[in-house]
Amino acid sequence: MSLKIEPRLTLVGAGPGDPELITLKGVLALGKADVVLYDALVDEALLQHAPDSALKIYVGKRNGSRDNPQDETNQLIVHYALKYGHVVRLKGGDPFVFGRGAEEIDYAKKFGIATAVVPGITSSIAVPASQGIPVTKRGVSESFWVITGTTSSGQLSHDLQLAVQSTATVVVLMGTKKLSEIVSLYKQYDKSSVSIALIQKGTTAQEKVVAGTIDDIEQKVLTSGIGAPAVMVIGEVVKESPLLMEVYSEALAFEAS
Amino acid sequence: MSLKIEPRLTLVGAGPGDPELITLKGVLALGKADVVLYDALVDEALLQHAPDSALKIYVGKRNGSRDNPQDETNQLIVHYALKYGHVVRLKGGDPFVFGRGAEEIDYAKKFGIATAVVPGITSSIAVPASQGIPVTKRGVSESFWVITGTTSSGQLSHDLQLAVQSTATVVVLMGTKKLSEIVSLYKQYDKSSVSIALIQKGTTAQEKVVAGTIDDIEQKVLTSGIGAPAVMVIGEVVKESPLLMEVYSEALAFEAS
Repeated sequence: MSLKIEPRLTLVGAGPGDPELITLKGVLALGKADVVLYDALVDEALLQHAPDSALKIYVGKRNGSRDNPQDETNQLIVHYALKYGHVVRLKGGDPFVFGRGAEEIDYAKKFGIATAVVPGITSSIAVPASQGIPVTKRGVSESFWVITGTTSSGQLSHDLQLAVQSTATVVVLMGTKKLSEIVSLYKQYDKSSVSIALIQKGTTAQEKVVAGTIDDIEQKVLTSGIGAPAVMVIGEVVKESPLLMEVYSEALAFEAS
Repeated sequence: MSLKIEPRLTLVGAGPGDPELITLKGVLALGKADVVLYDALVDEALLQHAPDSALKIYVGKRNGSRDNPQDETNQLIVHYALKYGHVVRLKGGDPFVFGRGAEEIDYAKKFGIATAVVPGITSSIAVPASQGIPVTKRGVSESFWVITGTTSSGQLSHDLQLAVQSTATVVVLMGTKKLSEIVSLYKQYDKSSVSIALIQKGTTAQEKVVAGTIDDIEQKVLTSGIGAPAVMVIGEVVKESPLLMEVYSEALAFEAS
């Protein structure tokens, strides 16, 4: 008697960091996994939702030296789905927000593998929220724009030039190394006083934040020691945070003195 | 012996529609609720996560005739928190994405009520995903912009003029009534062939979609009968959906014939 393998792939968003920020649907999918392929940014506590018998395989970059980690991940998905059945691909944040989830689906479909997506809480909204920053607020910001600092070309996205001119809250993911360029751009458009915050390991116990203005953020980042990966949020909503009130009231007092 | 009431407010995002798309943290918060205040767009199945003894109160608009439903909701939050303790405010989507969550927090804080936020899956990302549309995809779109069609001034956001010129995926929430204006704007910028989809009741069993281009979407919406509330997604990522492939391959065949 042999059981027929039914290869399928479920992309599951693990959320921004806090392991309680996965969805019920994500937990249910993990419970039916034969294999879990998980990323570097995923809390390993989430693996307990998968059966003991499921294979759990880390596919994050171990040393940064692999040439095509994405190709390798795509191939692993297909390999394990054909061999064992249900692969759950557990990805940080949401699979469709700079997660290359669409590429994994396209690749699996070429092999006739059925696919599904379970969305995750995106760090672009939840990490600012964790610092009390609403990405939208009536009378302050009526839109938000989420941009990657690391485009496939390696350049800062041209869209940022338009974003700077808008009233949108701008959220930059994977942009810590582009901070100087981003600051220059805001200054070009005479927006030196706009509020900005960088948040590292948001929604976890190790969360760190640095907040200021376009004018002083580079210096503050240097002294705070905040590094990648961090979520950057730019716009007047940053000042609306009850948790950051002191930063901005001090700044006002300083200006007035 | 009397128990001291400890008034507190937890805003919980209920997600886009599917009741399994709430987070574990949201379920845990509901489990400790004394009172749940819930919106029109929230699936009542979620109320089962709250204790039987908890008050469950609907605060959606019943008839659209109330002058200040938000003021009333703010007052109810404070009233119930002071009287019963832990109020869970269960809101559709994410509390900080056009949810007026920040206003509810500001109001509660004035009365010394402790506040917390549990993020929810935003329909702006998950509803397109439910139709196979990734808001970002390498080589197609490296940013996405989420805009409300219903600004506090009643006007279409000026930001949309900038968004149209960008390569961003544009997601418009609460914008169905502004479809004609949005179409005109894209045509002004010579973007008649850009892909667009409207999705109603996304992630639920009643999900409906209509997809096309800026040129033909108004006619298609008329014949499909899709109405508000719907999520509108504009950009070439719409064509990337395996579920909508037929729509666009037919269009290509028609052009070629």
